[in-house]
Amino acid sequence: MAISTLKTGRIAIIGASGYGGLQLVKLINEHPDFEISTLNGERSVGKNWNEINPFMKILGDKKITKSNIDEIALDSDYAILSLPNGLSSQLTPLLLKKGVKVLDLSADYRFKSLDKWKEVYTKEAAKYKRYDYDLCEEAIYGFSEEFSSEISKSRLIACPGCYPTASLSLLIPFLKQGLIESEGIIIDAKSGTSGGGRNPSEQLLLSECSESIRPYGVIGHRHTAEIESIASHFAGHQVNLQFTPHLVPMVRGILSTVYARLRDPGLTAEDCKIVIEAFYKDQPFIDILPVGTYPATKWVKNTNKVMISVEVDKRNGRIVLMSVIDNLLKGQAGQAIQNLNIMHGLESDIGLPKITFYP
Amino acid sequence: MAISTLKTGRIAIIGASGYGGLQLVKLINEHPDFEISTLNGERSVGKNWNEINPFMKILGDKKITKSNIDEIALDSDYAILSLPNGLSSQLTPLLLKKGVKVLDLSADYRFKSLDKWKEVYTKEAAKYKRYDYDLCEEAIYGFSEEFSSEISKSRLIACPGCYPTASLSLLIPFLKQGLIESEGIIIDAKSGTSGGGRNPSEQLLLSECSESIRPYGVIGHRHTAEIESIASHFAGHQVNLQFTPHLVPMVRGILSTVYARLRDPGLTAEDCKIVIEAFYKDQPFIDILPVGTYPATKWVKNTNKVMISVEVDKRNGRIVLMSVIDNLLKGQAGQAIQNLNIMHGLESDIGLPKITFYP
Amino acid sequence: MAISTLKTGRIAIIGASGYGGLQLVKLINEHPDFEISTLNGERSVGKNWNEINPFMKILGDKKITKSNIDEIALDSDYAILSLPNGLSSQLTPLLLKKGVKVLDLSADYRFKSLDKWKEVYTKEAAKYKRYDYDLCEEAIYGFSEEFSSEISKSRLIACPGCYPTASLSLLIPFLKQGLIESEGIIIDAKSGTSGGGRNPSEQLLLSECSESIRPYGVIGHRHTAEIESIASHFAGHQVNLQFTPHLVPMVRGILSTVYARLRDPGLTAEDCKIVIEAFYKDQPFIDILPVGTYPATKWVKNTNKVMISVEVDKRNGRIVLMSVIDNLLKGQAGQAIQNLNIMHGLESDIGLPKITFYP
Amino acid sequence: MAISTLKTGRIAIIGASGYGGLQLVKLINEHPDFEISTLNGERSVGKNWNEINPFMKILGDKKITKSNIDEIALDSDYAILSLPNGLSSQLTPLLLKKGVKVLDLSADYRFKSLDKWKEVYTKEAAKYKRYDYDLCEEAIYGFSEEFSSEISKSRLIACPGCYPTASLSLLIPFLKQGLIESEGIIIDAKSGTSGGGRNPSEQLLLSECSESIRPYGVIGHRHTAEIESIASHFAGHQVNLQFTPHLVPMVRGILSTVYARLRDPGLTAEDCKIVIEAFYKDQPFIDILPVGTYPATKWVKNTNKVMISVEVDKRNGRIVLMSVIDNLLKGQAGQAIQNLNIMHGLESDIGLPKITFYP
Repeated sequence: MAISTLKTGRIAIIGASGYGGLQLVKLINEHPDFEISTLNGERSVGKNWNEINPFMKILGDKKITKSNIDEIALDSDYAILSLPNGLSSQLTPLLLKKGVKVLDLSADYRFKSLDKWKEVYTKEAAKYKRYDYDLCEEAIYGFSEEFSSEISKSRLIACPGCYPTASLSLLIPFLKQGLIESEGIIIDAKSGTSGGGRNPSEQLLLSECSESIRPYGVIGHRHTAEIESIASHFAGHQVNLQFTPHLVPMVRGILSTVYARLRDPGLTAEDCKIVIEAFYKDQPFIDILPVGTYPATKWVKNTNKVMISVEVDKRNGRIVLMSVIDNLLKGQAGQAIQNLNIMHGLESDIGLPKITFYP
Repeated sequence: MAISTLKTGRIAIIGASGYGGLQLVKLINEHPDFEISTLNGERSVGKNWNEINPFMKILGDKKITKSNIDEIALDSDYAILSLPNGLSSQLTPLLLKKGVKVLDLSADYRFKSLDKWKEVYTKEAAKYKRYDYDLCEEAIYGFSEEFSSEISKSRLIACPGCYPTASLSLLIPFLKQGLIESEGIIIDAKSGTSGGGRNPSEQLLLSECSESIRPYGVIGHRHTAEIESIASHFAGHQVNLQFTPHLVPMVRGILSTVYARLRDPGLTAEDCKIVIEAFYKDQPFIDILPVGTYPATKWVKNTNKVMISVEVDKRNGRIVLMSVIDNLLKGQAGQAIQNLNIMHGLESDIGLPKITFYP
Repeated sequence: MAISTLKTGRIAIIGASGYGGLQLVKLINEHPDFEISTLNGERSVGKNWNEINPFMKILGDKKITKSNIDEIALDSDYAILSLPNGLSSQLTPLLLKKGVKVLDLSADYRFKSLDKWKEVYTKEAAKYKRYDYDLCEEAIYGFSEEFSSEISKSRLIACPGCYPTASLSLLIPFLKQGLIESEGIIIDAKSGTSGGGRNPSEQLLLSECSESIRPYGVIGHRHTAEIESIASHFAGHQVNLQFTPHLVPMVRGILSTVYARLRDPGLTAEDCKIVIEAFYKDQPFIDILPVGTYPATKWVKNTNKVMISVEVDKRNGRIVLMSVIDNLLKGQAGQAIQNLNIMHGLESDIGLPKITFYP
Repeated sequence: MAISTLKTGRIAIIGASGYGGLQLVKLINEHPDFEISTLNGERSVGKNWNEINPFMKILGDKKITKSNIDEIALDSDYAILSLPNGLSSQLTPLLLKKGVKVLDLSADYRFKSLDKWKEVYTKEAAKYKRYDYDLCEEAIYGFSEEFSSEISKSRLIACPGCYPTASLSLLIPFLKQGLIESEGIIIDAKSGTSGGGRNPSEQLLLSECSESIRPYGVIGHRHTAEIESIASHFAGHQVNLQFTPHLVPMVRGILSTVYARLRDPGLTAEDCKIVIEAFYKDQPFIDILPVGTYPATKWVKNTNKVMISVEVDKRNGRIVLMSVIDNLLKGQAGQAIQNLNIMHGLESDIGLPKITFYP
């Protein structure tokens, strides 16, 4: 059918060789409405994509190029940036000025205040000069389920971090409706190694990670600030919470286990399930599981889904919330495409997988 | 678009709860031209599919039923059987008689001679009575790339085993063209645990398999006879070869490393690559890798691809052939759908994934 | 040296074929002071141990026998029971009556009150009749570091569960000294699959567990009651806490992440580290890590160690405690041998490994 | 006992931070007859070993130092070198001159001819100048089971590579006794990732290796030359064979599957088992498994064992030999200690583990 070959959006992928980039390349390549305009990457510049990625042969005969704003502007409607923190904000103002809409996977625009960013991302703030206070304020936080209306009108989306996506999907419904105490929230999160990226490091070797689990970034992990910032927005006041990430011997997936106290200790797990089900009604990527069914990260692998389960300890009124996502899809590139669909006026779930190949 | 919702083939999936069945359910559910008519399974009969498989929510409101030939015949054009060896051939004749075309994932129709089957599958032959000599002769061996013409006209397809698919994809081009000695062929194959199925067994527990590799079925594995039977067909004479399977600590994937002797020891790896490239010209699922690039099973995970690499040891004229497949897709359910496409007059690659989500 | 071959304690291992049993066989076999008197097992009764366990060839020519109290009594000083809950307490009274001291790995004697056991282990209580109220009261909870004096004089040791060992090693020092609030404690625990035992089950297959993490037993896991019971003992009042176990794709190891509130929010992580270091002074199996160093389960694999790390969030006075153990050693068979050493008047660390083969 | 604390051999470990070095540190630290004199390492020079290796706390208060020949000579009887190829031979002559006996884990002295080494290790030969023809001739190949007499009198041991150890343990008995054809031997070997070392590289990341198996170094792997060199020695003529290594998603272990042709095709698997059993009679680290029992790498993990299984295909007289080792122990550091024991006049198995912690 001729119709399906008419691609209406041209997408520049900036930072294609990392794990986030690889997901973007696959998803855009197979998307019915978008096509890849430019492939930028640090590695293998000048080489043919298909030659150096025999496991991901895409349409056409794309070469990997260095980023050139003018060229990108010429052939792209959108740019998705999968770059290190601090570097993204060097390119974003230039792209926007040329009329290219930007979806940024880094943390650069996730805080409304640039000063907050500088406080949390100290090292990057020392390396890169930034004065784009206005863009920080303008950028929309790309948690698609909650901000789709703003996303549809925006030209700059700050795509959420992987841990924040998993955690906020649990917290927002209850904080926004004032059903849990905002004090004493604990997030115990578990991630696969792909969250650590593709750059070689001893601590991500199979020899080191396999057959082992360990906490890291205890107390001070940067995603704490991001989660608190959005949680505070929905709570209506400053939220201070505990976030502990753990490294799990698997490639993909995040499981977030969240502990909080119900304001009304009389609520049951079924009550809470109904609450969150209503909140996410008609959202194509959110599945609320039956009470007593707990999600495995494997259930959402290679999909853009969030699967959620709710329990309540009747003895003490504590709620235990669990969510699983694929950290590289809903936690990164998938949610970016979801936002891209919204910006482009499409159904939010076009071109995004919903069912895993089990097992 | 109304067009895409018009499903023209109705498929009964018999044996839906095993790993092969799960792949079929997902693939048919998402296929543009087919729809699931019946879901048969041993487990959870009477239950709603979506309730007991929260990780694989499909369209409609399908219940799992016991197999009933009349009902299947009423609402199905094709039946795909993912059943234990010996059990398939109890249902197949009844289905064919009712006009339902059959794609069988078991070994029941993989030998032209029923006696050969009884010799290799002794235990099953003792358990199930079989007299369907004619069907054994009639059945087409569903190695799609080689037998597509016969497949398109057949009503009974014996889908190849996982190891045979990986091994024969390497051997057929060279045996058929007489380029290798048929004597002294060695197949050293490595498979993930999903090849062992979903039924609980101590030896497939993560605690037992993780961090370990081991050979099994040395000398006497049943797939030896299947590989030899097809290899003999293409060699034009009886081939007697060595096949050793190994269990690898991973879920999906088979790597087959094949050693043989070139008839013309002057051939280079590049020569042999050209030979096999020409042989599989225009085949959508076969990728011949550049000489010096070796395939990882991960490169084809969740796809219907075969990736192939060729090396030659100039010192002694030995050829080393390597292939990787996803054992549950190209090695089982994927190839079944490929055959179904061919039988239904579609392009063979409709509804079948070609690119993995890396990593 | 003749001295080292003089074994002074004869040990019956009841339930040798499970994972706990396998550890016991290896540890006793290599122990300088103990020897295996009897190997009881459900599987392969009558067979030679070394024949059916080619990976664990032990001294002598031991056969696997059915449990016979008289025979055990004749040749054994101690019996270590690695049996299902409920079954242990069928044998224990008989063994004690014959003068055999018992170390029980099941939960049967972990509660001072038999009624509490019946409440928590409902299913087992329905299956096995129990009237041994006195033995429940008499049994010593074998958390070696805290109860060594009682253990040394006891004839019946209830060895702690794996999760309780990991969690209580963190809680006891702070609860006993009144440094944390006993209200609002949260234990988020992560375990390898060997904790689920060796009996085949679908959910422990590599195909199901690999590349996935999931919670289970949320709210109602039986170890909650055990942890609360011992925590209450040290707190001096009833403690009600949250315990959530998770299944991690690895064979061995438990990581316990514990969240609590400091009574004195002015304490630093260094302060708390000094507190716990002093508490466990001279304990050969407890390592307190420097502040900022977090333990990986791999660091204690195949050892009897507990490695502990402490953090404090200055913003809110919350303490985060982390411990890792090998669930089959310190969490099961290793701690049993540690207790056996104590009962036998030996140094507690004889014959128990302290350093892992990294990686 | 005072006796056991009298350590009679002082060992310098040169290259302690890599995976081979870590095994040496653990083994020497726990060895009844040896003590660590010097810990040399590239990383963390000047730092306390126990501080930077919290998972491997050793006796004493050792610091990591830069290698200084005079200091090593002063306090060491033996030096074990776990260094990159080419670098070992820069230090070895200096150590020998000072009277320190050397066990080298690199490939530098594995060939009798330095010219052969230069041919195989081209890159290293370009980087490091070598003129030590005499030492190449003098060095004893440390395959302990075969060369113990020479090892006991030598001052320079070239410890075998991991793949050669696994493969030669199978080939030597049959080649030496002329029972197999030396032509047409095929070695299909599978290794865990720790064989690739501890230096960070993308291809050894868990994200890349997990859930995947792949061949590498096909045809040209350097261990081919080493295996052929020793195999030729025992065959009495030049042997030319096929060796293909594969990377398996696990940390430790090598499985070697070897295919050869029996000279007398009438020999059965039982016959061949008796042959190899007799050959390795009384060897403490070699286990010949019953016919029909195939070894898993897990069975020898963390031990110095070789487990071997033999099969014969009666149809064609082909023998299939299988061995498993722990690549870091019998394949590297363990065999070095075994040789050290022999050189020091001890039983070869002192201080070396024989039983794994299963699972």
